[in-house]
Amino acid sequence: MLKKSVAGATLGATTLLWASPVSAQDLDSAPQAVVDNLWLVIAGALVFLMQAGFAFVEAGLTRAKNLANIMAKNLADMAIGVTMFFVVGYTIAYGSGGSDWLGGFGDLFFQESADPEVLFDLGAGLTPATNFFFQVVFAATAVTIASGAMAERTKFTTYLVFAAVMTAIIYPVVVHWTWGGGLIAQMSIGDAVYSDFAGSTIVHLTGGVAALVGAYLIGPRIGKYGEDGKPRAIPGHNVGYAVIGVFILWFGWFGFNAGSELAADEFVPFLAMNTLIAAAAGVIGATAIIWIKTGVADVAMAGNGALAGLVSITAPVGTVTPVFALVIGLVGGVIVVFSVLAFDKIKIDDPVGAISVHGTCGIWGTLSIGLFAKYDDAFLGREDAGLIYGGGFDQLAMQFVMVAIVIAWVGITSFILFGALKATLGLRVSEEEEVTGLDVAEHGSSGYGLEAVGGG
Amino acid sequence: MLKKSVAGATLGATTLLWASPVSAQDLDSAPQAVVDNLWLVIAGALVFLMQAGFAFVEAGLTRAKNLANIMAKNLADMAIGVTMFFVVGYTIAYGSGGSDWLGGFGDLFFQESADPEVLFDLGAGLTPATNFFFQVVFAATAVTIASGAMAERTKFTTYLVFAAVMTAIIYPVVVHWTWGGGLIAQMSIGDAVYSDFAGSTIVHLTGGVAALVGAYLIGPRIGKYGEDGKPRAIPGHNVGYAVIGVFILWFGWFGFNAGSELAADEFVPFLAMNTLIAAAAGVIGATAIIWIKTGVADVAMAGNGALAGLVSITAPVGTVTPVFALVIGLVGGVIVVFSVLAFDKIKIDDPVGAISVHGTCGIWGTLSIGLFAKYDDAFLGREDAGLIYGGGFDQLAMQFVMVAIVIAWVGITSFILFGALKATLGLRVSEEEEVTGLDVAEHGSSGYGLEAVGGG
Amino acid sequence: MLKKSVAGATLGATTLLWASPVSAQDLDSAPQAVVDNLWLVIAGALVFLMQAGFAFVEAGLTRAKNLANIMAKNLADMAIGVTMFFVVGYTIAYGSGGSDWLGGFGDLFFQESADPEVLFDLGAGLTPATNFFFQVVFAATAVTIASGAMAERTKFTTYLVFAAVMTAIIYPVVVHWTWGGGLIAQMSIGDAVYSDFAGSTIVHLTGGVAALVGAYLIGPRIGKYGEDGKPRAIPGHNVGYAVIGVFILWFGWFGFNAGSELAADEFVPFLAMNTLIAAAAGVIGATAIIWIKTGVADVAMAGNGALAGLVSITAPVGTVTPVFALVIGLVGGVIVVFSVLAFDKIKIDDPVGAISVHGTCGIWGTLSIGLFAKYDDAFLGREDAGLIYGGGFDQLAMQFVMVAIVIAWVGITSFILFGALKATLGLRVSEEEEVTGLDVAEHGSSGYGLEAVGGG
Repeated sequence: MLKKSVAGATLGATTLLWASPVSAQDLDSAPQAVVDNLWLVIAGALVFLMQAGFAFVEAGLTRAKNLANIMAKNLADMAIGVTMFFVVGYTIAYGSGGSDWLGGFGDLFFQESADPEVLFDLGAGLTPATNFFFQVVFAATAVTIASGAMAERTKFTTYLVFAAVMTAIIYPVVVHWTWGGGLIAQMSIGDAVYSDFAGSTIVHLTGGVAALVGAYLIGPRIGKYGEDGKPRAIPGHNVGYAVIGVFILWFGWFGFNAGSELAADEFVPFLAMNTLIAAAAGVIGATAIIWIKTGVADVAMAGNGALAGLVSITAPVGTVTPVFALVIGLVGGVIVVFSVLAFDKIKIDDPVGAISVHGTCGIWGTLSIGLFAKYDDAFLGREDAGLIYGGGFDQLAMQFVMVAIVIAWVGITSFILFGALKATLGLRVSEEEEVTGLDVAEHGSSGYGLEAVGGG
Repeated sequence: MLKKSVAGATLGATTLLWASPVSAQDLDSAPQAVVDNLWLVIAGALVFLMQAGFAFVEAGLTRAKNLANIMAKNLADMAIGVTMFFVVGYTIAYGSGGSDWLGGFGDLFFQESADPEVLFDLGAGLTPATNFFFQVVFAATAVTIASGAMAERTKFTTYLVFAAVMTAIIYPVVVHWTWGGGLIAQMSIGDAVYSDFAGSTIVHLTGGVAALVGAYLIGPRIGKYGEDGKPRAIPGHNVGYAVIGVFILWFGWFGFNAGSELAADEFVPFLAMNTLIAAAAGVIGATAIIWIKTGVADVAMAGNGALAGLVSITAPVGTVTPVFALVIGLVGGVIVVFSVLAFDKIKIDDPVGAISVHGTCGIWGTLSIGLFAKYDDAFLGREDAGLIYGGGFDQLAMQFVMVAIVIAWVGITSFILFGALKATLGLRVSEEEEVTGLDVAEHGSSGYGLEAVGGG
Repeated sequence: MLKKSVAGATLGATTLLWASPVSAQDLDSAPQAVVDNLWLVIAGALVFLMQAGFAFVEAGLTRAKNLANIMAKNLADMAIGVTMFFVVGYTIAYGSGGSDWLGGFGDLFFQESADPEVLFDLGAGLTPATNFFFQVVFAATAVTIASGAMAERTKFTTYLVFAAVMTAIIYPVVVHWTWGGGLIAQMSIGDAVYSDFAGSTIVHLTGGVAALVGAYLIGPRIGKYGEDGKPRAIPGHNVGYAVIGVFILWFGWFGFNAGSELAADEFVPFLAMNTLIAAAAGVIGATAIIWIKTGVADVAMAGNGALAGLVSITAPVGTVTPVFALVIGLVGGVIVVFSVLAFDKIKIDDPVGAISVHGTCGIWGTLSIGLFAKYDDAFLGREDAGLIYGGGFDQLAMQFVMVAIVIAWVGITSFILFGALKATLGLRVSEEEEVTGLDVAEHGSSGYGLEAVGGG
């Protein structure tokens, strides 16, 4: 591409005047590792931005009186998530010196990171700084999922403790088992090993199970169920926030899924393409079903359809053809509607549908590999991407085992955690605070300075 | 840049501990094709995010009672656009086996894409997955333009049919003629061939003509014209949404224009620079004119000035110097004000100014190449970028021919399409639904849960 | 990574059908300079998006009646900033033929840019177009800071003149002294030279000082101080806007800080990691202090804590380990609370806390290098990154000298500028306009079309 002769010919005083003040670059070749690390930083930044998407979706689907609280929780997810993952979690996930069960405890990353030679080293591919940056934003995603399901009634201090334990221990242990090379990574059924490209189960189901346990233990919002026991709709206060949030999440998901290749190579565009198609199909699936069932094209459900498609394709994104990405997304969109209605019926009050989007569709996406996966290491020689496909029933069984283990681990630990919090700090704000809104109760003022609209 | 000796010296147990679990990267050189494909994925993601910008702009410039409907349409543009372009449109645009007039029908892309060797192949530069990903987001842009011009009165089902036909046939045929190598790509007047770097006409005028036909056939909103026949302002409900939307679009446009280089090379920064300057000048042009005409610095018009500058520079971005990028953007900003006022006067009710921004400025940008283009293949040896500049009157004539052909093609097909829809499903909601707002009528509830503000 | 044999084997008619229509790429190596330039374009685009973040934060923390005005100012910052920096500012910052004191005047960049060989040249590393694109978005950042501190009472025309002078002269001179190789770049105390990786002082303190002078000269908003002289809270109208704005700024800051490496190399991930950690710690620091002082977890202050951490780490991001990034961010978060309260007490009315975030934390971040910097050129051979660390007291003194010089330069010039504007155009809208809101007074209509909510 480069026209060296042209470039060389124009090297002169005028040209150099506006050239980089740093210079030192030249026409030498870029190492592949440089491009890989750069892509992971960009992809990690996209995943970071998903926090803005989650905040928008959650705020849009809840009431105005809790806006500030929702924003505070999303800020806290990132602040606490980054800090705890830096100090503890990342070591459990990827460190040495621990067990296959409970993660590494040997060299603490935050101590090791004081040595720049560790952080800057390109010799092994991705630098440790790159790995940390890309992984920590996934931790923030995992914790924020529960925030939505427990919205509008959870004590702020209680939520902060949950976020800290989730990002320090519960999520890192799941990562250690899989991407960290622990327990699950060493298992196989027949030839099949567990496959979860970007974390339908590792990230989303983990968040979804914590969300379910939290929503169950805290109970429904005041007014959610009538005296007849039937659910009532508590409409969110701004469907515009919800849909813009969906677009931001969808955008960030290109980093989430295509970044999980952990390299800049010829599969990155394919991963982005599958992600796009599955989300589009999710919108269609969810919209069609809710329209048929209710007679109107509910917009919040259409938005959740996109997220359902995205969560569903997160595990199989690297192993299925685009046509099956479409099928997986479409089915994810259908499933999310039924799941939302089902949880509503059994009195699990989840204001934003997080349990269904991340939990139910996380399971669906994980299992879909056993049904539709086409690519495997033999076919494409992709040993380096960690994708091994055994096919058929063995694979389906292996996927199912992982789903069950994650449900058990996260279910039990988050039950203990939320139970302990309920017995001590308390999970829930007072009835009066809930009616007034958490903004005033917990944060001192309304998220909307409504008195200021249109006047002094 | 790389300090191999330092990196090599520190390779040891401690370092490897935190290195990528995938490894396999090394200090080998990155192929140019890898960097090209990576850039196109990132650029495509930026273009994707423009949908959030369009949704914000459209919502901000219309009334609160139609918020949910506008969000639904923007979600549908992406969902339907991706699906139809995957199943049909992309094949028409770039497939073989058809005619120069009507596009390819030979090998359907969605069938071909079942073969991973097709999707992953780096041998020819951009992988097919990359090409699809980058092109499909342009299709979504083309269709969403009409959404704004027909806002606040169009039936949702009717809009969905339009979006499907637009992304399956109308837009792909235009792409086939040009970027797909068909009819227009084979034409020349003298030495001049049609030049449209990123699609002032191919994307924006195509959308703008459909917007014009749709707005004309559906007629103005209730209350837009008084009994004296004069237009009345129907102010949008949130100028903050509109301006944030403009910033998001502007951001995405760096992908739109600089990504259209279809490679990561030394021209990418130049394309970004021209895009930035033209948009800045568009703000200045539009603000100055509206301020002079009305005595106030109208903010919605300032925002449309940025978009006018962006649409105007989209065709000539690769062929003009930055000073002329400034001139083209400035003139675009001036033109958009007069165009908005002119369409208002002839009773084409376009709530967001989409016809003027994308149509009028699309024409201006396309023609500006005949006036200001400086670079051509002889000068810079850029045969590979597809930029050929014949200069002067021949070039202006060639640009004009393309504008005329697109107006004819899109005008006639969308007239037939909207006409058929009007006669069958109907274009417009009932008067009562329009007054109540499309949110309740079409989507079952208000986009704003206003009853929830400040209380239980 | 690339499987040349596989790729080669599948090159055939089917494959090429969907390949890039431009082709010409191949498996040759990508030059490092191509990757560097690409990264700077992406990073520059991220910095550009920060303008949307600033607009959201400023709008969220002020009243609804001034929404349109705030949006107009942020559009103008970008439009005027880009234009003035193109025509004048960039030449002062980086041009030749001037003095070490006042910048270059020799060859005007906008004239030089008419020569494409100048703009496209990869020979010296970053192309001139790249340098301009990446630097101009920093200029827009510098000017927009003052907008927040002077919000809700400044005349629009006056603000436009300030923005023009700031981006044409005041900010470019500071850049010329440092990154442009002028006065400060040539100074040293002992072995220590001034170190400011991405501009805690060069960009943020420059903006913060202008903000302070502007807010002082214009005086507090009506109603900010009671008859007892004590400050009253004037709550913003949407804390959701503020927090989403913080997330967007945080996202853009990865471009701001990691892009300032001016290359795609092994330090980029490290810079992103330090940026992330410092911002997270800033949230924790600010939230903890405001909670202790007031008994509630104020959300706007939590958001400002993130920005405080980001501004603080901007200078030392390349010279400290992640643990100290955490410390610097945490202290920044603590400082910002006390600073906001202190300025409130001395009757400098800063509606968004811009003086504290960008000024006070800009100083803290700059000085922190003298306390915590670990990396220097001897240690890592990073001469090319412009990072030279002398250590200890000399370094602290050098940092302090720069802070003092910038306070003097920007303080005096902006005092003269705002003083001259006060005496001519006037700084402030009339009392009636301020009470009514600047939207109606300056821009002809409310930013919220409230009359349109819920009805025709």
